[in-house]
Amino acid sequence: MSSANSIVAIYSGGLDSTVMLYQLASEGRLREAVSFDYGQKHSKELAFARQNCEALGIPHFVCDMRSMVKIFGDNSLTCAGAEVPEGNYADENMKSTVVPNRNMIMVSAAAARAISIGCDGVAYAAHSGDHAIYPDCRSEFTDALEKVLALCHYTPIALLRPFVNCTKAEIVSIGAKLGVDFSKTWSCYKGGDLHCGKCGTCMERRQAFELAGVKDPTQYSA
Amino acid sequence: MSSANSIVAIYSGGLDSTVMLYQLASEGRLREAVSFDYGQKHSKELAFARQNCEALGIPHFVCDMRSMVKIFGDNSLTCAGAEVPEGNYADENMKSTVVPNRNMIMVSAAAARAISIGCDGVAYAAHSGDHAIYPDCRSEFTDALEKVLALCHYTPIALLRPFVNCTKAEIVSIGAKLGVDFSKTWSCYKGGDLHCGKCGTCMERRQAFELAGVKDPTQYSA
Repeated sequence: MSSANSIVAIYSGGLDSTVMLYQLASEGRLREAVSFDYGQKHSKELAFARQNCEALGIPHFVCDMRSMVKIFGDNSLTCAGAEVPEGNYADENMKSTVVPNRNMIMVSAAAARAISIGCDGVAYAAHSGDHAIYPDCRSEFTDALEKVLALCHYTPIALLRPFVNCTKAEIVSIGAKLGVDFSKTWSCYKGGDLHCGKCGTCMERRQAFELAGVKDPTQYSA
Repeated sequence: MSSANSIVAIYSGGLDSTVMLYQLASEGRLREAVSFDYGQKHSKELAFARQNCEALGIPHFVCDMRSMVKIFGDNSLTCAGAEVPEGNYADENMKSTVVPNRNMIMVSAAAARAISIGCDGVAYAAHSGDHAIYPDCRSEFTDALEKVLALCHYTPIALLRPFVNCTKAEIVSIGAKLGVDFSKTWSCYKGGDLHCGKCGTCMERRQAFELAGVKDPTQYSA
């Protein structure tokens, strides 16, 4: 366990980061959750994020990045004209869901927030199942980021990745033990009324519950 | 010289980054300049940035970060209520001008832009005189950032810091040789009609021209 004891968690409202939020809160070292509004089509994850923070009694800071979203160019998660692809993460067409360098920007901004409010750590929920199509989820990348955060302020800011060696199924198991209400987490990139059940993140979510042997409360539209 | 040949330059409109812009343009490998609007009081630097890009015929992309400026907390460069201090950079009160982790956020966003438009490098004008009060100007920090950029995409993004071993006076000398019109660069943190002549960045600017033996075209109000 990292020695950081006052932590800003990067919190999307998705399954992985909700479990992380519960875990850090149970350890008594979660100071604030930071969510990012970057114009994602699935912005309803932010509403789930707010609900979970309220349930845990944790301050929720929403960093509004919508004004800078043009920096991300064309990608299917933020561009109105582009369709979010269906199918497996391994498929080539899933590359359209890569938002360039998104995680580095989020970690940078969360570190700024941590410095601003006197925290000594930033946590994010990268996990071992994160896919090669997302360069900014690879462990070499997050290891390099950790070294930058150690130097970005007068005193080091720790970068916690508690799930970096966990599969998504293991995260589901941990969440189940912590009493996470999975029905209040959002994964689907399409952001419809229900989880679509067909995009890469829906397929992965569904499979994680199956592998973990945990009842999946998610309503899928297909 | 870095092997990157299609570069996004982080460009404030200040003296150092204007000289860098001219240098990269003279090498024929400058693709775009990116400036950041983060609600800085001295936003008139952005008008100078635009003028210099037009003069060089370089596209100028302004990344509007104003919606996320609350992430920076209290500091005298972006907060309406806080006074920009006068005096030397060595003074303790200059710490109020530190915008937490600003450079990491800018480098992250510039890398996103480089990826979006197919460039292979990001340049920024950190120099040897950058001060210990700015943790995110130290060379250990930028060395660590370089390693992150090498991993943030499918192919490496280079981080160029052409002036990292130069003093500000040496940058003035380089700019003079390249024909930079220094009257079209802005340094003062106060953002008044004229350079104040009293804040840390004004004092440093003035001294750099003196040391370089280059005529200083800047009009200071004191």
